[in-house]
Amino acid sequence: MNALQRLCKQLGLNFTDQALLREALSHRSYGTPNYERLEYLGDSLLNFVIADELHRAHSDLDEGDLSRLRASLVRGSTLAEIAREYQLGDFLLMGSGELKSGGFDRDSILADVVESIIGATLRDAGFEAARALVVRLYSKRLVNLPSAETLKDSKTRLQEFLQGDGHALPVYNVIEKTGQDHNLSFTVECVVKAQNQRTTATATSRRKAEQTAAQTMLERLSS
Amino acid sequence: MNALQRLCKQLGLNFTDQALLREALSHRSYGTPNYERLEYLGDSLLNFVIADELHRAHSDLDEGDLSRLRASLVRGSTLAEIAREYQLGDFLLMGSGELKSGGFDRDSILADVVESIIGATLRDAGFEAARALVVRLYSKRLVNLPSAETLKDSKTRLQEFLQGDGHALPVYNVIEKTGQDHNLSFTVECVVKAQNQRTTATATSRRKAEQTAAQTMLERLSS
Repeated sequence: MNALQRLCKQLGLNFTDQALLREALSHRSYGTPNYERLEYLGDSLLNFVIADELHRAHSDLDEGDLSRLRASLVRGSTLAEIAREYQLGDFLLMGSGELKSGGFDRDSILADVVESIIGATLRDAGFEAARALVVRLYSKRLVNLPSAETLKDSKTRLQEFLQGDGHALPVYNVIEKTGQDHNLSFTVECVVKAQNQRTTATATSRRKAEQTAAQTMLERLSS
Repeated sequence: MNALQRLCKQLGLNFTDQALLREALSHRSYGTPNYERLEYLGDSLLNFVIADELHRAHSDLDEGDLSRLRASLVRGSTLAEIAREYQLGDFLLMGSGELKSGGFDRDSILADVVESIIGATLRDAGFEAARALVVRLYSKRLVNLPSAETLKDSKTRLQEFLQGDGHALPVYNVIEKTGQDHNLSFTVECVVKAQNQRTTATATSRRKAEQTAAQTMLERLSS
C-alpha cells in the first residue's frame, strides 16, 4: 500500500483522481500545482457544513452563539489538532527548505491541508462525500461542544453579568499610552461604579487591554 | 394568490413550510422568531456555493483572485441589488417603527433577507434546492464577472506594476497625523524612488490614505 492509499484508508476516502489528492498535499514550496486553490474551496465548504450541523442540532442557540461555536471549531488551532490526530504531516509534500525548518508540523500548514483535502474530496467525489468527511473529522467535537458562554469575550460577559443584576454598563478609559506606531503600549482602566470597583491592564492594543481589565473585573465581582 | 405564494413564484421556489418562509422575512423588530438564525445559515451556504462555482469555472485563477471575486459577489451591496431585482422589500415583515424609518429599503436588511431566504430554502427543501436558488439569483453575475485585476486594491496594483518593470517597491510614510482618537486624520506620502515621484493623500485612517496615495501614483505612472 503506498502513502496515498494509506492516507485514504485513514480518512475513509476512495480517491478516484490521485493527482488531485497529491495537489491537496502539496505545499507551495513543492511547486505548482499546490494546495492553495483547494484550500480556498475546502475552507468555504467546511464553514458551511459546520454552520449547518450546528443550526440543526441547536435550535436553542441564537446566531451569535452559533457563530462563536463555529469560529471555535474552524479556527486554525482546531484544524491543526485534527491534522495531528490523522498524522497528516506525514503525507505533506514540501520543498526541502520548508521540510528542514519543520513545516510538516507547523499549525498553519496542517490547518491548510485539512481544508485542501476537504476541497479535493468535493471535486473528486461530490458534495455528500465531502460533507460526510467533515462530519467524520469533527464527530467528537460536534458532540462535545464548549459552552457558548465560555466563548464570549470578557467584555461581553462582564456586560451581561452587570445587566443581569440591573447595573449600569462598565466604563473603559485609556489612562496611559506609551511608545510609537509598531511599539505601542496601552494601559486601560475598567470602572464599575455601582460596586465601586476599578481594574487596570496593559497590553499592545487598546482592545486587548480592555479585555484583560474586563476579565479581572469579572473574576473580582464573581468571587 | 397571497403574498408568500407570489414571492415563491418570483423566486422559483416551492415552500412546504410556510412558517419557515415567514421567519426568513421577519426582521427582529417584528419579534421572535426572526430571520437572524436563517441568515447565519444562508450566509455560509451562499459563500460556499459561490466559491464552488468560481473554482470550477476558473481554473486559471489563483486563490487570491478567487477570493476577491467571491467577496465582490457576496458583499452587502451586491446582495441588496439582488433583493431589489426581486422586490424582496415588499415582502418584509417589520415593526412599525422600522417600517416608518424606511427599513424595507435599507441595504443591510435587504442583504440579510437574501441570505435568510437561502437558509430557509436549505431547511425546507435541502442542499440541491438551495444551491439551485443561489445559482439562479446569481446567473447574470456569475457570467459577467468583473476582471480579477480591477478588484485588487491600489497598493497591490501599484506593487505589481512596479515589479513588472523590475523596479523597487514603493515606500509609504505618515507625514502628518492630527486630531484625537475618534477624529484622527492621516496624511501619507507614497514615494517611488526610481521614477522620482511622490504623491500624498489625507484620510481618516492610515490604510485609506495609503490606498489613495497609491491610486494617484498609479494614475500618474500609467499616463
